[in-house]
Amino acid sequence: MHFSIDRKYFYDKLSVVSRAISVFSPIPALSGICIQVEEDQIVLTGSDSNISIRSTILKGELNQLQIESTGSIVVESKYLLEIVRKLDCAIIDMEQMDHSLVRLSSVNGQFQLNSIRAQEYPSIDFSKPDHQFTLKGEQLKQIVSQTSFACSDKDQRPVLTGVNFHTKDNSLYCSATDSYRLARKVIALDNVEDFNITIPAKSLNEVTRSISEDDSDVLIYVDHKKAQFVFDKTIIQTRLIDGTFPDVERIIPTQYVANMEVSSSELTSVIDRTNFIRNEKIHLVKMECTPEICRIKTNSVEIGNSDEILTDCIYTGEDLTLSCNGTFMLDALRALNAQTVKLEFSGYLKPIRISNPEDSSIIMVVVPIRSYD
Amino acid sequence: MHFSIDRKYFYDKLSVVSRAISVFSPIPALSGICIQVEEDQIVLTGSDSNISIRSTILKGELNQLQIESTGSIVVESKYLLEIVRKLDCAIIDMEQMDHSLVRLSSVNGQFQLNSIRAQEYPSIDFSKPDHQFTLKGEQLKQIVSQTSFACSDKDQRPVLTGVNFHTKDNSLYCSATDSYRLARKVIALDNVEDFNITIPAKSLNEVTRSISEDDSDVLIYVDHKKAQFVFDKTIIQTRLIDGTFPDVERIIPTQYVANMEVSSSELTSVIDRTNFIRNEKIHLVKMECTPEICRIKTNSVEIGNSDEILTDCIYTGEDLTLSCNGTFMLDALRALNAQTVKLEFSGYLKPIRISNPEDSSIIMVVVPIRSYD
Repeated sequence: MHFSIDRKYFYDKLSVVSRAISVFSPIPALSGICIQVEEDQIVLTGSDSNISIRSTILKGELNQLQIESTGSIVVESKYLLEIVRKLDCAIIDMEQMDHSLVRLSSVNGQFQLNSIRAQEYPSIDFSKPDHQFTLKGEQLKQIVSQTSFACSDKDQRPVLTGVNFHTKDNSLYCSATDSYRLARKVIALDNVEDFNITIPAKSLNEVTRSISEDDSDVLIYVDHKKAQFVFDKTIIQTRLIDGTFPDVERIIPTQYVANMEVSSSELTSVIDRTNFIRNEKIHLVKMECTPEICRIKTNSVEIGNSDEILTDCIYTGEDLTLSCNGTFMLDALRALNAQTVKLEFSGYLKPIRISNPEDSSIIMVVVPIRSYD
Repeated sequence: MHFSIDRKYFYDKLSVVSRAISVFSPIPALSGICIQVEEDQIVLTGSDSNISIRSTILKGELNQLQIESTGSIVVESKYLLEIVRKLDCAIIDMEQMDHSLVRLSSVNGQFQLNSIRAQEYPSIDFSKPDHQFTLKGEQLKQIVSQTSFACSDKDQRPVLTGVNFHTKDNSLYCSATDSYRLARKVIALDNVEDFNITIPAKSLNEVTRSISEDDSDVLIYVDHKKAQFVFDKTIIQTRLIDGTFPDVERIIPTQYVANMEVSSSELTSVIDRTNFIRNEKIHLVKMECTPEICRIKTNSVEIGNSDEILTDCIYTGEDLTLSCNGTFMLDALRALNAQTVKLEFSGYLKPIRISNPEDSSIIMVVVPIRSYD
């Protein structure tokens, strides 16, 4: 194996596949990047066995790839990235010295890195699943950023650690919930067969981090075992989470006793200011709402209390006093990214629906908490 | 106690005194800022009992200070800073409600914070030590940044965790060593009485972080017990480290068998590139020098090896092969901040003197390490 390539181009591709690599891999070879040099292309693979990324480099003017001889080897990801990032040359030369040693050279220097035989790298099945649909890079990024934060970070109910994607009537429903709150985005999709899958939030975040061009297409292939995201000569493949995702439609309230239209930035600032007033690490925010005045209050026996009046706020309906998790409110407000948000209240201790009047594709639900003061 | 003040001005002053406060304080009151409101000024104090910072706010146009009533209280530093930073008002109002409650108000909101009686705050002696000299803010920052990194971070020999300042013949010698390397800066001082003190590196770094204006004077007062830095209505006072600082003059070699003039940026890049090739966490760099060629090599059985030729480098004297700690070399090169650095070699396994030919005030010494390959 021997080739030379534009250093920066190579670094970018290595960075993408390295995202799949975990430092805590049980299989030693998985801490490395598998480099397969073929007649006219190089295939880079990184994996932690849950998520796998494969990037193909074809000969081209941009990358100045020259292949002297073919072969495969697995090189420790962090060392390889470090060298390729720091070498001071435009073109980097990489050559396999024997079955477990690889040499990287610039004009004045060279590095030799201990490596692992390609045979020890687990074989990863990159075959394409059946169902296919397409999203713009930006669209996929938005779905993930507006939903994945609401996933559970606890492993007690694994299915809640992922974002559920299901199709119905030419719409794609993307939902995340940790059972105390819900984020749901709905977008239109043409001619797609029905599926219902849950993708780990961690994998989705890696996918969106790897998308560099917002307006290019991302091809998405799914079946009941895995999902594949294909763009820019790169395949990102992730396992799915087993289990039935809860029916989140039932959580979304449909009848309301009151609603509030409020400046999103004001509500965000008011809640954020009280962030340090916590009870057993929970940031509990009490909303006292009447059509005359809406107050946000917090109280902690240990730290102190706060009381602030919302100024840019219209409230209609019956008087209500509700407590909810301030962190969840802030997450929802940030994800909605609205000028004005609409909060719809279904009653004391009942779910609050939060939406952006200018974007009906996305809604948030936050469940109030019982408080004792 | 009741006053109002420009929020941003107040925040800046609170930030400065809060730097002295440690989260691990054994005395509860020391986790707070002591606020003393007098007839015509406010005195803020923060301390971890090793370092203490006092800042005085006099009535002025800039701060719009209005004092309604006098009094003293101690308020938890992190909560107070959080509120003052985030409140959305130009003027903040602060009022003591009872002996352990303080209220901060803006136009639409208010916070009440549990506080501690001022009587519980330890009394700190801010009297001025005898010897006094003056440095420009920038000069002091440079002394600290060019020496303090070489202090020991281990507590075995406490005196090595500080920077030693001693005067001789109208010069101030500032030295730091962890016994494997030395950084020494010498600057001229007029009419100063002799002293020899060692100031904790941590305290010096806090002092330089608090200096906002580089060209204003910092008055420095020292005696055998403490040092005081006075600038901008702020006093930073630190205890000294007991014990005799080693005679570092003896470490600095005076006779040389070879020397190298090399581009500082090239040497830095070459060493930095090999940073990941470590043996038991030590970054060991081997320099193979002859007048014809100078190479930087590293080797680790586990990871691999590197070999790079210095191009922008002139070496004269006898052939030498030396190994030294790459991290120490990088620290020294960065602190010298030179275009070209001069390395003077006193022999195999003997100290290397590193200097900037354009700045004779500062020298570095690095002691080579015996290596077995």
